[in-house]
Amino acid sequence: MEIHKGLAGVVVSETKISSIVNNQLLYAGYNIDELILKKVSFEEVIYLLWHLKMPDLTEYNDFIYELGDRMALSDTIITCLKIQCHQKLHPMSVLRSTISLLGVFDEHAEAIDKRAYYEQSLSLQAKIPTIVAAFSRLRVGLDPISPRKDLSIAANFLYMLTGEEADSVEVAAMNQVLILHADHELNASTFASRVCASTLSDVYSCITAAIGTLKGPIHGGANERVFEMLLEMDRQDCAVSTYLDEKLDRKEKIMGFGHRIYKTEDPRKKHLKKLAKELTDKTKQEKWYLKSCEVEHYLKEKKGLIPNVDFYSATVYHSLGINHDLFTLLFSMSRIAGWLGHINEQKNENCLIRPQSSYVGLQNQTYQEMKESTIKEGY
Amino acid sequence: MEIHKGLAGVVVSETKISSIVNNQLLYAGYNIDELILKKVSFEEVIYLLWHLKMPDLTEYNDFIYELGDRMALSDTIITCLKIQCHQKLHPMSVLRSTISLLGVFDEHAEAIDKRAYYEQSLSLQAKIPTIVAAFSRLRVGLDPISPRKDLSIAANFLYMLTGEEADSVEVAAMNQVLILHADHELNASTFASRVCASTLSDVYSCITAAIGTLKGPIHGGANERVFEMLLEMDRQDCAVSTYLDEKLDRKEKIMGFGHRIYKTEDPRKKHLKKLAKELTDKTKQEKWYLKSCEVEHYLKEKKGLIPNVDFYSATVYHSLGINHDLFTLLFSMSRIAGWLGHINEQKNENCLIRPQSSYVGLQNQTYQEMKESTIKEGY
Repeated sequence: MEIHKGLAGVVVSETKISSIVNNQLLYAGYNIDELILKKVSFEEVIYLLWHLKMPDLTEYNDFIYELGDRMALSDTIITCLKIQCHQKLHPMSVLRSTISLLGVFDEHAEAIDKRAYYEQSLSLQAKIPTIVAAFSRLRVGLDPISPRKDLSIAANFLYMLTGEEADSVEVAAMNQVLILHADHELNASTFASRVCASTLSDVYSCITAAIGTLKGPIHGGANERVFEMLLEMDRQDCAVSTYLDEKLDRKEKIMGFGHRIYKTEDPRKKHLKKLAKELTDKTKQEKWYLKSCEVEHYLKEKKGLIPNVDFYSATVYHSLGINHDLFTLLFSMSRIAGWLGHINEQKNENCLIRPQSSYVGLQNQTYQEMKESTIKEGY
Repeated sequence: MEIHKGLAGVVVSETKISSIVNNQLLYAGYNIDELILKKVSFEEVIYLLWHLKMPDLTEYNDFIYELGDRMALSDTIITCLKIQCHQKLHPMSVLRSTISLLGVFDEHAEAIDKRAYYEQSLSLQAKIPTIVAAFSRLRVGLDPISPRKDLSIAANFLYMLTGEEADSVEVAAMNQVLILHADHELNASTFASRVCASTLSDVYSCITAAIGTLKGPIHGGANERVFEMLLEMDRQDCAVSTYLDEKLDRKEKIMGFGHRIYKTEDPRKKHLKKLAKELTDKTKQEKWYLKSCEVEHYLKEKKGLIPNVDFYSATVYHSLGINHDLFTLLFSMSRIAGWLGHINEQKNENCLIRPQSSYVGLQNQTYQEMKESTIKEGY
């Protein structure tokens, strides 16, 4: 019996959403390199991932309006966030719970018609940056800032973090990272959302499952750990090679390197590397970029390892002034676009996802009563 | 390229937890028929699914003590439940959020050593009945009842629902349904929990994903719908055959029938059918049992369909006085034992679960700028 551990190479479904061909990543047939080059907005990419075509101007304006109308959080959700706003709590756990609570309080969460589903998708996509920004402020004792409908998702998010409008370089960078993380075939969190959707569970359940899955350190949790590594190197003030050699000797996994699909280059890396350079130049913190380049070079030479999407995005997020423990939340703000597309696709052509296991445990056990019965009343 | 839609027949991992052999269900080598016959406790079954052996008396008493010590909910969790206690809210969404919130407030949720993991498993297993009972009371304006350490999980749960000790027939029935739903190979919710665990995410994330997945109407959500069907038949007061023929003509799925794995008989059904008879005799509501038998007989004759675990468990839960919209929560109280075993097993021999998709969408798209730019400031 062949065991497909990790399902590597097993094709579980057809998709029209994204594809990886010759180390290129495409969203519904559009190469991400072109989307970045042409300065497409994250909103257009969301539309593309959901509708499998680019919007015309009317569709685009309607879409922006629909998203803008759904960005604000209810008082109940703000109350729930306040209960969860101690400094020590894990931000991804708070996001997981808050998304789940959005579902609790959506009286149409169980509706299964296409319009209801689309409404839920808009609401989730629109609210997730508001949740992240509100949490980021509440936990340091600041009031949340209301979203502004006149700003793009990228600009609005940076505005809601600080209360000040970010400059155009920062907004463009934020827009790019949102695009670059938006979808990636059947990665583990997307797959988790599809497994959940395959029981015809509601959209909130699927997104909650995806967020919990993305939280794992060998998935979305990696970029936070990348920056921890850069910080540690900086503190230790030793040569990059010395630091990495010690880490490799201890057989520790180096975060932000290696990918099951890309063997020569992750197509998102070059864009993130460029952003990391631009932003660290701007913030006069070139050291993070330079150190990252050194790490990339050394690991390539010594171990043939290549950086993945998490490696340079750590420096990009840091340079945008994002707290390190919020990095994976930014990933969620972007990837939710893909998750929602995949959940819709799964439900439209549904087949329950239920694999098999190979039993290798004990056989033919016979139950023996426990000798002395001190079992309490009621058992 | 072969597409394994739904992963039917694809073996994704080895397991020592449960197996299905010749229409028999075994937990770590023990046939469930024997566990029922020998009147084993649900607590023994949890121990078995986690440790892959039956406990001796000392181990058992320690285990009971450890569970009992962790049943109570914190004031914060009670506060969160109160926020979610309106009648209209979906109980599975509330359970999903509350389990997620347990993770938010567990300061050791991120610990990855085996002891921390075991501690989290104990805590989750111990608290889930308390959450379900507290929610069930809070939403009708009653105060939650504190758990009692001197009662079994089955007896304690029924006690926490009403404030009165259930009789021995009810406790035995509750114990049996908990055992019968405790594990079932790689069903969709268990698989979702393993996908989440494969990113090395925390236990709360994995259980939250599993609950959201179980919520789906073609997974755990089915038994609630089975009872809705029985109620509808009762209201319409027509022949079972007439009702079912109309449903079949409309090509509606009949809940509680059919299973991907069992083609001749679901081994859990006979036990649940027996319980349904005993309990409806006791409550003098034989009609639900008799109607169920008629449905079973008719669908077998006419369509060759066989009842699955959800079909008779609907009548059992109803006869135990459980509200219909809580049926899937009872399923969760039981299946969490299996989920926790599987999450542990996945993490111990981990391999990221990340399948592939086959792209069938648009090719070679070129981005065209939208003609007239009315895009607002900040884009």
